Amino acid sequence: MPAATDKATEDRIRKLVADWTKALSAKDARRVLSFYEKDVVQYLLAPPLKYEDPTAGNLQQWFDTWKGPIGYETQDLSVAADGNVAFVHGLAHMHGEKADGEKPDLWIRLTLGLSRRGDDWKIVLEHESVPFYMDGSYRAAVDLRP
Amino acid sequence: MPAATDKATEDRIRKLVADWTKALSAKDARRVLSFYEKDVVQYLLAPPLKYEDPTAGNLQQWFDTWKGPIGYETQDLSVAADGNVAFVHGLAHMHGEKADGEKPDLWIRLTLGLSRRGDDWKIVLEHESVPFYMDGSYRAAVDLRP
Repeated sequence: MPAATDKATEDRIRKLVADWTKALSAKDARRVLSFYEKDVVQYLLAPPLKYEDPTAGNLQQWFDTWKGPIGYETQDLSVAADGNVAFVHGLAHMHGEKADGEKPDLWIRLTLGLSRRGDDWKIVLEHESVPFYMDGSYRAAVDLRP
Repeated sequence: MPAATDKATEDRIRKLVADWTKALSAKDARRVLSFYEKDVVQYLLAPPLKYEDPTAGNLQQWFDTWKGPIGYETQDLSVAADGNVAFVHGLAHMHGEKADGEKPDLWIRLTLGLSRRGDDWKIVLEHESVPFYMDGSYRAAVDLRP
């Protein structure tokens, strides 16, 4: 990672990501939303290709498909930051119980792009994904482990 | 995108991404590799979750699964850069004919993390993905259009 990333900025961004994942786990839509810039672009696990303009209502709708809290633990996050621009990437373990009784337990790849506005960093890009099997099944690879 | 991104840097990065996609299309493994930092992390369409330490040999092996050139056109790329850190995101249209006669034609989400070393920018993170259907099929959504 670039030498330019200073320790204080890196710590601040790591804390922001930790707080964001805590809000996700707790299914606190309003709090999750507070981490995003207004014009955030999201590439998420579910279609469509691109989400824009997330609302507390949309988030809450998705949260409500989970029975309890959403397990969401990041692993080995890398942070690169300079001036007003930063990005973060790593893997995350997502697990829990859906309202329909399904129990997802998967590892995903996470990239966040961030922008500093004054003293505050905001998420301007969120990219979450799993790869898919190239064996003709086109099945999402939700059974991979790091 | 952050006001910090100056025009000259943005142009330079857009040209780099265009040149990288040209090298991909032409299946020029050595040239593709020249755009990556040595410790690049790649989250690609195929498993595993994470690739590290790409080699010309590995790249060429994948290129050889395509009959002709690989269609790879990016759309509406956003560039954010400040100091020595930048990231790029957008959609890309990937298409062509595989050696086995299959004709992939899909849109993917692309995120690149870049790092400036002296006058030169290098790709340190590549994240490519499609979402998957949450209807129980877990099928990769390779039929989505922007």
